[in-house]
Amino acid sequence: MDILKTKAEMQTWSAAKKRQGKSIAFVPTMGYLHKGHVSLLEIGKPLSDELVLSIFVNPTQFGPNEDLDAYPSNIQNDLDLAEQAGVTAVFLPDKNEMYGPDYQTHVYLDHLPRYLCGRSRPIHFGGVATVVTKLFNIVMPDVAVFGKKDFQQLAVIRQMVKDLDFNIRIIGGEIIRETDGLAMSSRNAYLTPAQRASAVCLSRAINLLKQRVDQGVRSVPDLVREAESFILSFDHTRIDYIELCHPRTLEPVDTVQSETLLALAVQVGKSRLIDNALIGPT
Amino acid sequence: MDILKTKAEMQTWSAAKKRQGKSIAFVPTMGYLHKGHVSLLEIGKPLSDELVLSIFVNPTQFGPNEDLDAYPSNIQNDLDLAEQAGVTAVFLPDKNEMYGPDYQTHVYLDHLPRYLCGRSRPIHFGGVATVVTKLFNIVMPDVAVFGKKDFQQLAVIRQMVKDLDFNIRIIGGEIIRETDGLAMSSRNAYLTPAQRASAVCLSRAINLLKQRVDQGVRSVPDLVREAESFILSFDHTRIDYIELCHPRTLEPVDTVQSETLLALAVQVGKSRLIDNALIGPT
Repeated sequence: MDILKTKAEMQTWSAAKKRQGKSIAFVPTMGYLHKGHVSLLEIGKPLSDELVLSIFVNPTQFGPNEDLDAYPSNIQNDLDLAEQAGVTAVFLPDKNEMYGPDYQTHVYLDHLPRYLCGRSRPIHFGGVATVVTKLFNIVMPDVAVFGKKDFQQLAVIRQMVKDLDFNIRIIGGEIIRETDGLAMSSRNAYLTPAQRASAVCLSRAINLLKQRVDQGVRSVPDLVREAESFILSFDHTRIDYIELCHPRTLEPVDTVQSETLLALAVQVGKSRLIDNALIGPT
Repeated sequence: MDILKTKAEMQTWSAAKKRQGKSIAFVPTMGYLHKGHVSLLEIGKPLSDELVLSIFVNPTQFGPNEDLDAYPSNIQNDLDLAEQAGVTAVFLPDKNEMYGPDYQTHVYLDHLPRYLCGRSRPIHFGGVATVVTKLFNIVMPDVAVFGKKDFQQLAVIRQMVKDLDFNIRIIGGEIIRETDGLAMSSRNAYLTPAQRASAVCLSRAINLLKQRVDQGVRSVPDLVREAESFILSFDHTRIDYIELCHPRTLEPVDTVQSETLLALAVQVGKSRLIDNALIGPT
């Protein structure tokens, strides 16, 4: 497994593989890998000759009061998991490698970032779109795998790839959960034991609304109200949003008439946790 | 010479060439080719195995009151010139091919577009950066050639390529001029004979200021004032800007102390003409 710390090294590595006719699968991450990330590597592995993992905590996708400085890191464990998953190259740039001092170019989307997490994280998806554009140009993959836990991020990347004509296939990996249903996230590391117990409220709220929709409830205000009181019955919880929306445009809907994205963000202690599911008639 | 009308065809063509180990040089244009464009093709030809020309009048880089609908076109002549110049593929998408109906992704730069042409054309360079990003992803070139007549465009592209980590070498081609000094431009086609006679004022103003700087004049206000009255002594002229600025950042300067970009834009009849030169001590 090669470890490449500069953009030039990574680009040279990828260009050489491509000249040899090798295909490249790519899983970009912010490190502190868990089983969710490993599942993305497992999706990419059989699809290509080479499997590249990037680890970079991208500062431009964090707002001023977010957890950039606290973001957990364990590079040695990440490298061990990568090796086990058959990664052939890790791109591990340091903070100063990715953005030069006169950096001034950005990628943004008009609509998708306005919804869901974009409301409380207004600069987030521009930062994501920009760093992923950079990573795509550095790694030059044929296929890239992103987790569906970050559903809006996946929607942004798919739209950007289509709009900017990247010759890259995008695959979404299913959400991987702890045995009690909590979606795996590096941010679960911030939870105290009491908060960890409350964190199950997100997946349980999803199950509750799935049940209600199966029972015939279609009114989004009614569904949201029920989820709200359910989540607030847990300690240490503060709701950022509970929304039902169109799964492609992310525009809010009033009634559940077809397949609908249920997405929620809940602050549990210091961790802002997100979860989502597709619900309703398909 | 292959003519490719869809993004998918062009991407497939380029991917096949790259798999064969071939390098690709690329000259993006809006068509109505003249000797300036041909000189860019001549620069690209010996640098690579394949030479791709694109012809696309990009609507997103024109403002609402600009000449999008009037932009001249002569595809058959373009294809003849391309063939003569050794182009191996022409990418010739139609208007609806480049931007889908739900298109929403843009590339923009913070600083370089604020100066020079960006003042009177506020959306222009965002449109350029975005379409060039798309064209780079579609053609996947190793090297791309842009003319120095559009000096600010070249600066924007260079910055964007560096910031977004495109693995593409950018080359600037020298300005090609008519025998009387007028910089070649597709927009010269709009000029009536009387306006064509006046259009020489741009290159003559550059020569005048070069002379003054050689004579020791260093004050930018003095130089600009002299160029203004010189240009306005020609019929049919209206000055958009005459500026002296830093050749990399494009920030205006007060005195000519080192190599300086002299750039000007003059409306002559219906044609907005631009020209530029590096002047001052190197």
